[in-house]
Amino acid sequence: MNALIYWLDMAGVIVFALSGVVLACRTRMDPFGMLVLAAVTGIGGGTLRDMVLGVGPVFWVTDPTYLWVILVTVGLAIIGFHYIHRLSRGFLPVADAFGLALFVVIGAHKTLQLQMPGLVAVLMGMMTGVAGGMVRDMLARRVPMVLREEIYATAAIAGGIAYVGLDALGAPGPLAVAVSLATTLGLRLAAIHWHLALPTFAWVVIPSASEAASPADQKVAPPASPHEPPRPKVRVRMIRPEQSRRRKNRP
Amino acid sequence: MNALIYWLDMAGVIVFALSGVVLACRTRMDPFGMLVLAAVTGIGGGTLRDMVLGVGPVFWVTDPTYLWVILVTVGLAIIGFHYIHRLSRGFLPVADAFGLALFVVIGAHKTLQLQMPGLVAVLMGMMTGVAGGMVRDMLARRVPMVLREEIYATAAIAGGIAYVGLDALGAPGPLAVAVSLATTLGLRLAAIHWHLALPTFAWVVIPSASEAASPADQKVAPPASPHEPPRPKVRVRMIRPEQSRRRKNRP
Amino acid sequence: MNALIYWLDMAGVIVFALSGVVLACRTRMDPFGMLVLAAVTGIGGGTLRDMVLGVGPVFWVTDPTYLWVILVTVGLAIIGFHYIHRLSRGFLPVADAFGLALFVVIGAHKTLQLQMPGLVAVLMGMMTGVAGGMVRDMLARRVPMVLREEIYATAAIAGGIAYVGLDALGAPGPLAVAVSLATTLGLRLAAIHWHLALPTFAWVVIPSASEAASPADQKVAPPASPHEPPRPKVRVRMIRPEQSRRRKNRP
Repeated sequence: MNALIYWLDMAGVIVFALSGVVLACRTRMDPFGMLVLAAVTGIGGGTLRDMVLGVGPVFWVTDPTYLWVILVTVGLAIIGFHYIHRLSRGFLPVADAFGLALFVVIGAHKTLQLQMPGLVAVLMGMMTGVAGGMVRDMLARRVPMVLREEIYATAAIAGGIAYVGLDALGAPGPLAVAVSLATTLGLRLAAIHWHLALPTFAWVVIPSASEAASPADQKVAPPASPHEPPRPKVRVRMIRPEQSRRRKNRP
Repeated sequence: MNALIYWLDMAGVIVFALSGVVLACRTRMDPFGMLVLAAVTGIGGGTLRDMVLGVGPVFWVTDPTYLWVILVTVGLAIIGFHYIHRLSRGFLPVADAFGLALFVVIGAHKTLQLQMPGLVAVLMGMMTGVAGGMVRDMLARRVPMVLREEIYATAAIAGGIAYVGLDALGAPGPLAVAVSLATTLGLRLAAIHWHLALPTFAWVVIPSASEAASPADQKVAPPASPHEPPRPKVRVRMIRPEQSRRRKNRP
Repeated sequence: MNALIYWLDMAGVIVFALSGVVLACRTRMDPFGMLVLAAVTGIGGGTLRDMVLGVGPVFWVTDPTYLWVILVTVGLAIIGFHYIHRLSRGFLPVADAFGLALFVVIGAHKTLQLQMPGLVAVLMGMMTGVAGGMVRDMLARRVPMVLREEIYATAAIAGGIAYVGLDALGAPGPLAVAVSLATTLGLRLAAIHWHLALPTFAWVVIPSASEAASPADQKVAPPASPHEPPRPKVRVRMIRPEQSRRRKNRP
């Protein structure tokens, strides 16, 4: 059981590292930039988890195999850079969903082993799966996609709740792992396939009555725009995904 | 005394979480984005403090009440999203100043309890109050406002010095807490009311004499502009707040 | 030996802090912004290293001299702000290379003292030297330059390998330190002088055959552009530095 999880963990690191490599190419980085984005995505979430839990040296300091795996992955990606573009359609999103599901289980499992409360375990599972990609996007100066539209973190939270709940009910370990993996994977793959997304909330400026000839003039407010008198009304609107015209394309 | 501080701490977390919710709406995030910005703002500063101090598990791992408070706050904000826009004028800046003052005292207090030097305690108080908002702004891809113009961190530093100084002089705990709260709150509210700001320093390009017909041509240099020969002179100018034409509007 | 390293460490902190001050001026920050950028650059790398290694309180909590050094550096920079622009040519890049070389040795040395594996020591040396500047650039909302074109991290990695390798071979401490310093410094100064850079990898859109009149139409894809049918081909190209027309100017 544990050996299986260990190898699946390595597979998750490889997949997440590849998503870092793809984003590095998209933002035109050099090989070191690739290495940093790959490492941050592959082991960043677990690093933050271990630092927050205060368990002493983080996992890849104790077991540098993770670092070698990332080095070899980036090395192979550089040698075979002609083929990187093939990763970004089809294969990578599905593999990424697989890695997410695994990281959630591993994060929740490690936290429960430290006798932490269930809510903390759910949060740590989510953080292990999601934080690496968030820092990756920040380094490449994008607003982390996970904060905006896709059902990504929601799937991670559901998987974490499934694991922690079954563990609390005394279910055998392999069953809890399997149900949690299936929950995260299922939700995430469904979100990819049907473009599911949660509604977003937006700050909407409504022009004051005198200048508002037609309601079609409503527009989303630029952040921190200087408000000139007469003050336009500002409201928060819920925007359902089907109203959104933006396409979804993640690296 | 301690129970009072605990409840005030929770109030500070709620207020900071709400400022994260408001920024999430302004940058059009989904409910998970709201949750992340709320959590980062509400408990991010204390998390960084505990990780730097190396105290083992951070405070909200030991006491998950903080997490429940943030969950409930965001849940209520989503249910009542029609009313979020009312928060951004008037109420929120004042409540935020209150939260800042509390977080400074709590950060400095915890550090002194660990027998750390006074300078570290002042820094930790400031970090507890300010770091959450900085990471919030970075996640939403803004240059943290606290780095630019407002008397925000300065108020936090003054409050921290007041607390650490009174503690070193042997003042009773409640007095030190009260004076520190009053210092931070007073400075911050004064800064909000009179739009006080520190002078900023800017990189100014002075065209070379041959092309500089009038001194009015001086302009602030775009960062990292390619310098063409003949090289323009570059100087650092101090810009007083009243010269600045930018409006201040924080979420 | 140890006293010499301690003083050189302080010199490295001062130089890195000054690079933070220069960037703060370029992005028009107030004195507190200067202080934050200076502190993040000067002690950020070592802070991350100590948190990852889980050594308890980070180094500047145990020895606040580092904080005083940064405070005095920023104070002097504010008093003498008329002269800051003189730092950005000539002096600062060379001094920065010196600081980088020192931080690499210190990071690798501290890690080996904790009986960590060699690969971790190389990584920690690199992280100590590079991470502060990366967070500095993120706070000022730039894509960290170190991720893009310059031979910066590569020099740090080479210096770390030199130190760890000589240490493993049983070389005396001062020799390992000297060779590592010379390696990092030499590579970095050569990169500055001859504008050496690693090739970058870029995502290139190739228009579909029907609309591609000439191959000169190939252009670098804007990140995450909406792909309209008929789908253009996307390839990853390796771009050698001499093909790049962008100038290099770091703060």
